[in-house]
Amino acid sequence: MSATQHTGRSALRPATARRARGARPAIAVTVGEPAGIGPELAIRAAWARRAEVNCVLLGDAAFLAMTASYIDPAIKLSALSLQAVRHGGLPHFGPERVTVIDVPLAAHVVPGKLDKENGRSVLATLDAAIEGVGAGWFEAVVTAPLQKSTINDAGVPFSGHTEYFAERTGTPQVVMMLAGQPAAPSGAPTPPPLRVALATTHLPLKDVAAALSRDGLARVLDIIDHDLRGKFGIAAPRILVCGLNPHAGEGGYLGREEIDIIAPAIAAAQARGIDARGPYPADTLFQPKYLQDADCVLAMYHDQGLPVLKYATFGHGVNITLGLPLIRTSVDHGTALDLAAQGLGLADGGSMDAALDTAVAMANASLHLNQEQT
Amino acid sequence: MSATQHTGRSALRPATARRARGARPAIAVTVGEPAGIGPELAIRAAWARRAEVNCVLLGDAAFLAMTASYIDPAIKLSALSLQAVRHGGLPHFGPERVTVIDVPLAAHVVPGKLDKENGRSVLATLDAAIEGVGAGWFEAVVTAPLQKSTINDAGVPFSGHTEYFAERTGTPQVVMMLAGQPAAPSGAPTPPPLRVALATTHLPLKDVAAALSRDGLARVLDIIDHDLRGKFGIAAPRILVCGLNPHAGEGGYLGREEIDIIAPAIAAAQARGIDARGPYPADTLFQPKYLQDADCVLAMYHDQGLPVLKYATFGHGVNITLGLPLIRTSVDHGTALDLAAQGLGLADGGSMDAALDTAVAMANASLHLNQEQT
Repeated sequence: MSATQHTGRSALRPATARRARGARPAIAVTVGEPAGIGPELAIRAAWARRAEVNCVLLGDAAFLAMTASYIDPAIKLSALSLQAVRHGGLPHFGPERVTVIDVPLAAHVVPGKLDKENGRSVLATLDAAIEGVGAGWFEAVVTAPLQKSTINDAGVPFSGHTEYFAERTGTPQVVMMLAGQPAAPSGAPTPPPLRVALATTHLPLKDVAAALSRDGLARVLDIIDHDLRGKFGIAAPRILVCGLNPHAGEGGYLGREEIDIIAPAIAAAQARGIDARGPYPADTLFQPKYLQDADCVLAMYHDQGLPVLKYATFGHGVNITLGLPLIRTSVDHGTALDLAAQGLGLADGGSMDAALDTAVAMANASLHLNQEQT
Repeated sequence: MSATQHTGRSALRPATARRARGARPAIAVTVGEPAGIGPELAIRAAWARRAEVNCVLLGDAAFLAMTASYIDPAIKLSALSLQAVRHGGLPHFGPERVTVIDVPLAAHVVPGKLDKENGRSVLATLDAAIEGVGAGWFEAVVTAPLQKSTINDAGVPFSGHTEYFAERTGTPQVVMMLAGQPAAPSGAPTPPPLRVALATTHLPLKDVAAALSRDGLARVLDIIDHDLRGKFGIAAPRILVCGLNPHAGEGGYLGREEIDIIAPAIAAAQARGIDARGPYPADTLFQPKYLQDADCVLAMYHDQGLPVLKYATFGHGVNITLGLPLIRTSVDHGTALDLAAQGLGLADGGSMDAALDTAVAMANASLHLNQEQT
């Protein structure tokens, strides 16, 4: 699998160009940590959308069938083995049932209780999702939350979904973006979707400044521009870029990274035809009057960008990995083991619903572009 | 002027206890940089509220009279010299006129064009405001934006309004807080006011982590608690505290400041009876469902806290200096020289209006508490 220098596009081809006319898009949903809220949220979201979306759940078929029967006895699942799909392709059962590809667990699941025996099975659902995109079974992947520690305790070094997808698809650099639909204030029109990409992600704050570089930011801007075009169907993406320091450094008075690193990276991106602007003070930029003219904001670090996103979308944000040769969205919350332990019906499925709807919208945009090109 | 250890309360007594029954509260408004938008916004806000608030504009009387006549010939100002007020006290002209205390400029004002000749006059308006609170003329001070460079160019080292008020009132530590009223989403009830205090303010991002200390944070929590009680009339303030690092350090995995500094400072504050909680991840905490149970959020740095505040309040935030022995609010924007150069009627007065309304509300809360105590 080869990767080009900037965007990490590999030989892996998404299946989007192959959807039959009138068919529902096929979306893989990995159900995540079985002791958490992921399986319930995945089943609910898939069942609610079965008329429009062919959600394929990747998880233990028997466990999912039992969970579904507790949620609502009317829910119908149809299970297949991975071997069967490899042999005969993904059957399309029609909108009366939700398809499950069986990825067996090793140990009995106690809700709320982690068991390292099941760590490798969770990982196997991710492998099946990646395989299925490459094989043309799925147009996109939605991931429910997993517990990193369970996989590490199972003896597999694992630092997160995003890193795993990057490694398994031979992608040298990915960009984390969160997106959501802000609520409209009373009497005001609905604002556009808010999308916030991060130049750095899970770093201690003291290490953020040193992690920025001109070349790194230039690659981030390339990936954002590339994926907003290719996966979101935005013909001319407009990217607003935050400074690193308060007031974007106030002309060097509050830090020099804007002058030495960020502004040159923006200028270089502009020279390549990318509509990136800034660096702007984060507290100026994140005002509705400026956001309405932006397709994406690039924040320099986690807590500069995500508090506004979470505030504006009431916790129903979607995590999207840009730069991968496939469409991958995720919820923006964790496994909520405490809620899972208390029983079904307690978790808020808003982020899972949004992740699935976003994956479908991205699959449709990609399909449209692919059809235009062929 | 003496100051106690924690809160910087000095011998300066606010005038709140002395308001005659039925009288309008007297609020000083320093008009700021004369070449910017401050004078216009101050005049408009004072005139619009003249029935309820005795706004006293501190600035050049002739310049303000000319500006007022261009805004609306119906506006009536009554000017006094500082000497006259010192001698006879502040006369109450009634709600037909806005009072001006004349602080003369040295040079002719060209809108949009800075002139260092006028730097010392701007500073003199701040001195008059502080003097007037001590003398019982004013219950609070509202400051329009000034240009730091003009004052420095005039030969007076000056790093900002906040620092100047602290120094002149003998206050060892102040806390910057921004507050505003978020818009209600369609169909939802009006959310409570959002208040965000900052543990550090105008520092390069790379210096933030090293600037935090247990004792410093403990003093910040003391000041917030003290002023929410004494200036806002909140009987039992609830303070939510952000972590420094993403996910509040994830148990030490993404930074240790939460464990070594922030959590101990919160525990110490709790032991003193302060309802402070955290540290919480900033992107979790800044969700409406958590904010509805908080009177104030303490963010560790500028761009962790202010983007949400500005987003939620549509740029109509109010800057409040906690820890001073007086009530001081300010707009959260700059002088907008470019707008001023284009003429009157272009600037958005929302933040000035909010700063004045907040000052009045705080003066009323202080008055109420003072009356209860006497």
